[in-house]
Amino acid sequence: MPSYQAPLRDMQFVLWQLLQAEQHYQSLNFSDASPEMVDAILAEAGRFASEVLSPINAEGDKGCRFEEGQVFTPAGFKEAYQQWVEMGWPSLAAPTELGGQGMPESIAHLVSEMAGGANWAWAMYPGLSHGAINTLEQHGSEEQQRLYLQPLISGQWTGTMCLTEPHCGSDLGLLRTKAEPQADGSFAITGSKIYISAGEHDLTENIVHIVLARLPDAPKGTKGISLFVVPKMLIDEQGQIKAANQVRCGSIEHKMGIHGNATAVLNFDGAKGWLIGPPNKGLNCMFTFMNFARIGTAIQGVAATELSFQGSLAYAKERLAMRSLKGAQFPKLAADPIIVHPDVRRMLFTQKAVAEGGRALLAWASQQVDLVRYAKDGRAKEADQLLGFVTPIAKAFLTELALETTNYGVQIHGGHGYVKDYGMEQIVRDTRISTIYEGTTAIQSLDLLGRKVLASQGRLLQQVLQHFAPWVEPYQDDYLLQEFYQPLSKTLQAWQGLTQSLMMRAMMDKDEVGGAAVDYLMYSGYALLSIFWLRTAALSYQALADGSAEPGFYEAKIKTARFWFQRMLPRAQMHAKALQSPVDTLTSLDADWFRF
Amino acid sequence: MPSYQAPLRDMQFVLWQLLQAEQHYQSLNFSDASPEMVDAILAEAGRFASEVLSPINAEGDKGCRFEEGQVFTPAGFKEAYQQWVEMGWPSLAAPTELGGQGMPESIAHLVSEMAGGANWAWAMYPGLSHGAINTLEQHGSEEQQRLYLQPLISGQWTGTMCLTEPHCGSDLGLLRTKAEPQADGSFAITGSKIYISAGEHDLTENIVHIVLARLPDAPKGTKGISLFVVPKMLIDEQGQIKAANQVRCGSIEHKMGIHGNATAVLNFDGAKGWLIGPPNKGLNCMFTFMNFARIGTAIQGVAATELSFQGSLAYAKERLAMRSLKGAQFPKLAADPIIVHPDVRRMLFTQKAVAEGGRALLAWASQQVDLVRYAKDGRAKEADQLLGFVTPIAKAFLTELALETTNYGVQIHGGHGYVKDYGMEQIVRDTRISTIYEGTTAIQSLDLLGRKVLASQGRLLQQVLQHFAPWVEPYQDDYLLQEFYQPLSKTLQAWQGLTQSLMMRAMMDKDEVGGAAVDYLMYSGYALLSIFWLRTAALSYQALADGSAEPGFYEAKIKTARFWFQRMLPRAQMHAKALQSPVDTLTSLDADWFRF
Repeated sequence: MPSYQAPLRDMQFVLWQLLQAEQHYQSLNFSDASPEMVDAILAEAGRFASEVLSPINAEGDKGCRFEEGQVFTPAGFKEAYQQWVEMGWPSLAAPTELGGQGMPESIAHLVSEMAGGANWAWAMYPGLSHGAINTLEQHGSEEQQRLYLQPLISGQWTGTMCLTEPHCGSDLGLLRTKAEPQADGSFAITGSKIYISAGEHDLTENIVHIVLARLPDAPKGTKGISLFVVPKMLIDEQGQIKAANQVRCGSIEHKMGIHGNATAVLNFDGAKGWLIGPPNKGLNCMFTFMNFARIGTAIQGVAATELSFQGSLAYAKERLAMRSLKGAQFPKLAADPIIVHPDVRRMLFTQKAVAEGGRALLAWASQQVDLVRYAKDGRAKEADQLLGFVTPIAKAFLTELALETTNYGVQIHGGHGYVKDYGMEQIVRDTRISTIYEGTTAIQSLDLLGRKVLASQGRLLQQVLQHFAPWVEPYQDDYLLQEFYQPLSKTLQAWQGLTQSLMMRAMMDKDEVGGAAVDYLMYSGYALLSIFWLRTAALSYQALADGSAEPGFYEAKIKTARFWFQRMLPRAQMHAKALQSPVDTLTSLDADWFRF
Repeated sequence: MPSYQAPLRDMQFVLWQLLQAEQHYQSLNFSDASPEMVDAILAEAGRFASEVLSPINAEGDKGCRFEEGQVFTPAGFKEAYQQWVEMGWPSLAAPTELGGQGMPESIAHLVSEMAGGANWAWAMYPGLSHGAINTLEQHGSEEQQRLYLQPLISGQWTGTMCLTEPHCGSDLGLLRTKAEPQADGSFAITGSKIYISAGEHDLTENIVHIVLARLPDAPKGTKGISLFVVPKMLIDEQGQIKAANQVRCGSIEHKMGIHGNATAVLNFDGAKGWLIGPPNKGLNCMFTFMNFARIGTAIQGVAATELSFQGSLAYAKERLAMRSLKGAQFPKLAADPIIVHPDVRRMLFTQKAVAEGGRALLAWASQQVDLVRYAKDGRAKEADQLLGFVTPIAKAFLTELALETTNYGVQIHGGHGYVKDYGMEQIVRDTRISTIYEGTTAIQSLDLLGRKVLASQGRLLQQVLQHFAPWVEPYQDDYLLQEFYQPLSKTLQAWQGLTQSLMMRAMMDKDEVGGAAVDYLMYSGYALLSIFWLRTAALSYQALADGSAEPGFYEAKIKTARFWFQRMLPRAQMHAKALQSPVDTLTSLDADWFRF
């Protein structure tokens, strides 16, 4: 397993140069979030990631042990978690009035990338608490907040989101778990939930489950789903644990990857739960922070790409095989290191461009999260709209690309990539889930094209383009940047044209949306990331002109931008072509003749 | 794990309609290979694949057991192998004078697809023998042939190819294993070989290793490599086993997949071996059948895609989730089966198009193998040249696509695809090695662009295009086929243009070859498969016009062709764009600044 190093220099570039984070934090009155303080926090988190979390990542792959309803996490996981809590990381971005440290959400996101890059399976344990915290913070009663929020925020307990049942995942309207009202105002929850990440473990003495279930008289479908808080251990009025609740882990899944994280089957057998928010409005309540959770999953795309890149780069500089086609580059060695071979560089550049471009996109998105949460003016609403548009793209596009980039990590290592010793194949397996959970790529694409683009009649796309115009238009006549500006400008224009024609087609036949959505999302991803790479190239040329003391860093940025525009952006055309294909091509074949 | 069903109907289409196999076999005097006989053989192989091999595929994933130099294969593997041998499958395509059944190689390839589709890890045990058999058949002494060939051909023993060492895989010039001449005419082989598939097992009493090693005075690099036959068990003049040789399995690898196949570290400690062919000509000897071995690996791309498609299709017809965007299609069910959703169909069509198109391409290639082996006239040479061009494309293109198609199998299953129960993730893991072993995608692409295209100054491409012209040109004015003919014609023209301009660039800078090769190969793959899909569509329209009793089968073919041209072929443009990018984009960044 490659030993993870936090990409601190790139994070600094993204924060302080690309995203003007100093002004951003000042405008939100985060007086503590000075560059010095933030850099110190990131350096400390990076140390924890590389020194504590990275060394137990391969061990984690051996998996959790399940015994009579109990889960034992892999060696070292519990100790790492205890340290994590003692150092106060869980509460970094929580409000001070709830015992948090009151830092911006966007800083916590970078910390998540580091923890997740070093050890995704481990990072899911604290990561899953966010859903429970957000739910209770926004929709919990005062009593519920008093009892559950503080231990969740401090990391003393963890949380889960219990949505999926054996027969339904994407289609929650089908769920069957029942909630029967009890005389004491609580509800008896009965049903079986599957695929509950961090659903059972030995890291904390309690786990707070947020459970989707149906009241006895609930309407059918998604409009009859309510939210409940169901603690693993029941607590008294003072928050002290008093007895086990009727929720039991029936088994844990044997999965392709993320073996260190227990994916639990949870059986609720009349477990005591309490209603959160209004009855039958469970899905609405959840949607209020869906974007945050999806950004959290998008991070996996960047984190995995970064880890795979780091391992690949070290190997490519050290492994000797064949000579450069131009002739020996290192004649004293028995062969040239494989980084001389252009195709190895093609794969490394893909990893680098996705990791850095994706990091920039997510850092921008998490600034929008800051704005949604903390801006007092109209900026909150605008940020929420931008976020609604960009989140499904970021989640699906970055995780889809991560399937490719992590596979390149294996490919660069050749046979050594396929055996477990180098850890490259573990990254592929750990990352494979990312295009599925928290809404599959198809679900994200329908959210983007259906709920965002078409429902706004294209206005949201215009808003996004206007938002980024200051990153694009100033370079219209900049000689050095034409190689980036020209193809970007065409891509953005075509984006609008494609959107227009899709709106027309959708009016004729709603199915066209389903046939075009994934390609539309992928097109949007390439377009969006190209904006970030243009801006990055522009700032890098500026830094060089200003006589930067790190010319290599900025040259690498410009050359990665060039790679992106020459080698990655052409994929957008392919998606454009595919999405213009009529849906009839997909749907007209009778299902009976879909056979072999 | 999906239960495998041999795609017999499609194989019949490919053999008897698309490839006119009846005439092909007659022209090579295979009087036994009548359509009735071949169909009966395929049906019987299909039964074996689905009834014997498929049921032990999931069990095989639990892996081999290694104990003190011995390997114990998974439950059922040995029994299945014994049946396989008793039924005579290993010798199907071997010459009758060596105890074989004298059937054409192309039939054996379809049997390999079935065995491999049902259980790739198992199929590698008999599969690996081909390399040893071919080596001995073509380059072994009379004595070596007498002693080793018959038991290898019957399947009584298996064989291996021992190439890779810890520090060298793609670059065999670096290999260090030594061969010291002994007084008795044998050689003492000393060195360590890794990644030896089927290198140790309990299926047979002997294993015949073909080992690459260096004689004491051998020149450095690839020109100093010789081939040796090194049996695990030494035999006497009558071929009876007499004692263990000094070759020991040091361990087996822990891999991402193909767990049922033992990947051995073999330590040769003065093991007795005998020189095959002339000294220092080992690589040349191996290249004589390299194309056959690579086609054998290309089969994995098709076999895995087929298996993943079968599992996905069954699930898509049965799993209920959400309603069609057009409104409920199955109002009596709680939700529609997911095959109504266009994006699910996009993934299914991709699998179907790759499985069927790839099968057709490989069946064509294996007819060329028949011609190389058995044609007495000029056809053998032409077939060898065509095969030299198409083989690297088939191997790399079909295995790269299989990474995508098998991942779609997981994606269609959602969370159920990520857990082991449904077997979809095993297919991804088993298939991941296919773009690496038997020459990585980059190695294949350099073979194609460097050794085939550029070395022939483009003549080989012209030869391939001329060969396929009768499949393309007759449709120039066919109204029904314009939707396929037009884009194909443009793609083939552009193929020639891209090749021309690459030849120019390569003259200026050899590195351009390395920067463009993989994209050139992928472009070539889309172009080549499009020829097969045009021809398939044309034959299908003809069958419908002739009043076929299976209109659904042929309509499905036409609609899959349409999917291919509308949704897959646009990728060729993306590769064209990428390969036109100057190599400088990849190479100019200083390796020191390739960092994070």
